[in-house]
Amino acid sequence: MSDPATPSPESATLLISCPDSKGIVHSITRFIYTNGGNIIELEQHVDRRDQHFFMRVEWDLSDFVIPRAALADAFDRALAKTHRMEWQLFFSDQKPRMAIFVSRHGHCLHDILARYQSGEWDVTVPLVISNHRDMEEAVRAPGIEYAYLPVTQDTKVDVETKQLALLQRHRVDVIVLARYMQILSERFIQAYPDRIINIHHSFLPAFPGARPYHSAYDRGVKIIGATSHYVTVELDAGPIIEQDVVHVRHSDCVDDLVRKGRDIEKVVLSRAIWRHINRKVLVYKNRTVVFD
Amino acid sequence: MSDPATPSPESATLLISCPDSKGIVHSITRFIYTNGGNIIELEQHVDRRDQHFFMRVEWDLSDFVIPRAALADAFDRALAKTHRMEWQLFFSDQKPRMAIFVSRHGHCLHDILARYQSGEWDVTVPLVISNHRDMEEAVRAPGIEYAYLPVTQDTKVDVETKQLALLQRHRVDVIVLARYMQILSERFIQAYPDRIINIHHSFLPAFPGARPYHSAYDRGVKIIGATSHYVTVELDAGPIIEQDVVHVRHSDCVDDLVRKGRDIEKVVLSRAIWRHINRKVLVYKNRTVVFD
Amino acid sequence: MSDPATPSPESATLLISCPDSKGIVHSITRFIYTNGGNIIELEQHVDRRDQHFFMRVEWDLSDFVIPRAALADAFDRALAKTHRMEWQLFFSDQKPRMAIFVSRHGHCLHDILARYQSGEWDVTVPLVISNHRDMEEAVRAPGIEYAYLPVTQDTKVDVETKQLALLQRHRVDVIVLARYMQILSERFIQAYPDRIINIHHSFLPAFPGARPYHSAYDRGVKIIGATSHYVTVELDAGPIIEQDVVHVRHSDCVDDLVRKGRDIEKVVLSRAIWRHINRKVLVYKNRTVVFD
Amino acid sequence: MSDPATPSPESATLLISCPDSKGIVHSITRFIYTNGGNIIELEQHVDRRDQHFFMRVEWDLSDFVIPRAALADAFDRALAKTHRMEWQLFFSDQKPRMAIFVSRHGHCLHDILARYQSGEWDVTVPLVISNHRDMEEAVRAPGIEYAYLPVTQDTKVDVETKQLALLQRHRVDVIVLARYMQILSERFIQAYPDRIINIHHSFLPAFPGARPYHSAYDRGVKIIGATSHYVTVELDAGPIIEQDVVHVRHSDCVDDLVRKGRDIEKVVLSRAIWRHINRKVLVYKNRTVVFD
Repeated sequence: MSDPATPSPESATLLISCPDSKGIVHSITRFIYTNGGNIIELEQHVDRRDQHFFMRVEWDLSDFVIPRAALADAFDRALAKTHRMEWQLFFSDQKPRMAIFVSRHGHCLHDILARYQSGEWDVTVPLVISNHRDMEEAVRAPGIEYAYLPVTQDTKVDVETKQLALLQRHRVDVIVLARYMQILSERFIQAYPDRIINIHHSFLPAFPGARPYHSAYDRGVKIIGATSHYVTVELDAGPIIEQDVVHVRHSDCVDDLVRKGRDIEKVVLSRAIWRHINRKVLVYKNRTVVFD
Repeated sequence: MSDPATPSPESATLLISCPDSKGIVHSITRFIYTNGGNIIELEQHVDRRDQHFFMRVEWDLSDFVIPRAALADAFDRALAKTHRMEWQLFFSDQKPRMAIFVSRHGHCLHDILARYQSGEWDVTVPLVISNHRDMEEAVRAPGIEYAYLPVTQDTKVDVETKQLALLQRHRVDVIVLARYMQILSERFIQAYPDRIINIHHSFLPAFPGARPYHSAYDRGVKIIGATSHYVTVELDAGPIIEQDVVHVRHSDCVDDLVRKGRDIEKVVLSRAIWRHINRKVLVYKNRTVVFD
Repeated sequence: MSDPATPSPESATLLISCPDSKGIVHSITRFIYTNGGNIIELEQHVDRRDQHFFMRVEWDLSDFVIPRAALADAFDRALAKTHRMEWQLFFSDQKPRMAIFVSRHGHCLHDILARYQSGEWDVTVPLVISNHRDMEEAVRAPGIEYAYLPVTQDTKVDVETKQLALLQRHRVDVIVLARYMQILSERFIQAYPDRIINIHHSFLPAFPGARPYHSAYDRGVKIIGATSHYVTVELDAGPIIEQDVVHVRHSDCVDDLVRKGRDIEKVVLSRAIWRHINRKVLVYKNRTVVFD
Repeated sequence: MSDPATPSPESATLLISCPDSKGIVHSITRFIYTNGGNIIELEQHVDRRDQHFFMRVEWDLSDFVIPRAALADAFDRALAKTHRMEWQLFFSDQKPRMAIFVSRHGHCLHDILARYQSGEWDVTVPLVISNHRDMEEAVRAPGIEYAYLPVTQDTKVDVETKQLALLQRHRVDVIVLARYMQILSERFIQAYPDRIINIHHSFLPAFPGARPYHSAYDRGVKIIGATSHYVTVELDAGPIIEQDVVHVRHSDCVDDLVRKGRDIEKVVLSRAIWRHINRKVLVYKNRTVVFD
């Protein structure tokens, strides 16, 4: 919602979920208003089946009277405890720090790097990790650290320990698996819950696992797709952030599916990243609430 | 957001637009909360360029203390005047009353009637008006009045007078032009501002006016589309509610475009109607705000 | 490719598949040309993996010298045997005869009937079979026979025998399952190979079987779809003719998915029917070749 | 249609258009067959309104008896003259040579370079021309010549002369305007008829000219799009090769349209390039015939 003519002011964003109850929206907006905040965007959603409440609210901090350092505590005391909220607080001037994992297919990585370098995303990319050397040059050109960490069955545990150390050193908030062809361990995944974004090259739940384009060809589908989701311990079964598809024809061989699919993968992954880094995604019961 | 297992309670919906100012959301939600309402859905939007505020809020009336008959006045006094709001109030048990105008192309009408008869829409259709007899049988079967009113250059003013009388007699809230091939007069349009929904068989603003599929063929476009919009005095230039497209190929002749286009017309028109009768559309500066 | 200005002449269409070999196109076009036929449309495709050849060719019969009654034999002798072709021959003035099976969801049936009555399709619909009475009135209005044949576990075999007799009596060429909620027996399916068109309310192979919209909601997908396929003995696993999808949001509950899905089901089924009755579909190894 | 397992043999491709007449397909396939060619792909189309014939045929040269150097003459003598054909002949081992023009928006260029470097396209890119220095580094990295040629009203004629000389020196076959913000002269355009591919950031014919996203926002459309077309003398009115769209919402400001539009521009342009370099596009009466 930013407009180049009117640069975005410093703002705070809250992502909230809690059991639904009367007056929640009123309580939250009162907290913001009575402390001098001006709401920029508010979107809420109630899951009627579970009576569960979700909200994203962003407000201008220009005249807000609670100091940033005290805001989390103040919100917790005033509202979060009473309503048993799960919540996350972000400030607009804190850029997310994103690491990218890649193997040998470079199309998603190249797409991400081009967006990053052109300033399309308000994000910092300090680190790319790969089990191959293919992308080293492209990554180092803009000054990003490229950690080449080959993985074998035997070294997997050690390599993940090194990866986690690197991620910590770079204070990484979010990890993007841009066609990283290794399965992460439970230990790794649980270190970044709802913060590892994967792109899978099928419209899940169809064709999970390896070689989905081959499976799609064999099944004779008329659409192929891509799915971006948060990584959970169960393979290709995490909460879906974004999906899209493209039509194919009988004359498309597997190679054609791969080629057409790449374009969908790039776009779907980049939309998922955009939403995540703009703090528009909440996870609840393995589903996502994606605010516009 | 209704769920068959938990039937929707009686609710009220407010559509509001006004100049943006600090605390508006808080004021509105306080009004609802302190009078015993429980918010079911709330969506707001701020046009940053114009600093204009839009909101749709629906709340459960079960424990609401202000009587229905007094609600409009109460809201006006409490909030609307202060904030210079334009607003509309609806109750969930007041079904919109919809009239349909049609000429000789029946696909949109048949689609609407099938939805109506299957109970897909919470609406009443008391009247169909046509300048031809073609659809008479299909319309009368479910017991809808069919007014056959042929139009010539000379009778146009008189016919519109008769149409307006019929609409008034049937207390019609919204008019759907389901491929009605007559241009309505300014007098007529202004009697139902933002309440006449048209379907145009192109992705406007491309190909306004007559024979858009022929124009699309001649221009060699690779997509064709349909646009549903509120009718304004300027032809095919009113606020757009919904649009969609379908891909076409060089081998599609004009007849193929017409055939493929019909399916888009039906779907686009029905989506626009759905949004209107669920009070999800606001008009501002010839654009629509469409809440989800 | 028909044009209203130039009415289609009487034509013949061949659908051919066989092992690929040099000169096949030349042989077929020579057969047509030397006998006085003028090709209206020709599309061919070679499956490179299997070296298998597919062709659809339609030609004008105005000056064709082989009598219609002798054409099949002539083609068989001249070409089909030598090249081990599987082939089907159609004449443009032989309208396909289509039966529709339906249960209680009427949206696909209503859509088909509206197209049928408006003359959109060059087809005859003599018969609708249902295990419920719901659609009886709508079907009988245009003079179609409505066979009400309720099915229980015990009567299933008998009912299918009655159904097959009805289909035979009406000389039905193609059967459309327009949301028919019964599983057909192997005996029934094998009586109409590649001639029973089903609509399944998911983007197969995701969510086969019952209640796909509920499964889609639970999985939290961001797209839902519909698939039209030929019925084979394995449930929801037959050759896919057409698929399409629509985007959904976190705020869409199961009811919303059902509502949005209906529109996709109608369009996908009607596109599949269109292709089948225009003889544009070939089946090979559980996949379809769909000529444009 | 290539398959990695079976590398494409050397092949020839003919693109043909001519007045329709009986036996054309037969004549062409006979020419290929009797000279030892094996057809790999054949697609034909007849414009019924104009009785005009179009064909794309590709055949294996392994056993073809006419030498490559003599093929054009042989075809001309045997068929082209008699049938008044316009035709183009290509050999699969002749890579198209592509120049790219760009100004300051780099997203399309970066997308093209990533595809080029990954070997997605069978093409050579010897030259990028720009009126700005922004993209110089990205272009020079893979060893492509970057010609920085700023343009003013006064120097335009001279600059185009230099551009044409560069294009000739690099033996360029096709020019891609990847968001090049200068209008080319008639002289320039006529030097590369149907060989200059532009990407326009709207679904033409809607919003031609400058600032289409601003116009789209003002009109309140619910879809935005991109159009790739061959450049002709009339601005944004050339034959359309490919179009696609993306849905937008009332909450999308102009910046959002620009961001969403970029992804469509990249994909649409790359699809158009793919088709052109695979010799799948024919131009006729300002429309394109695009073979699959």
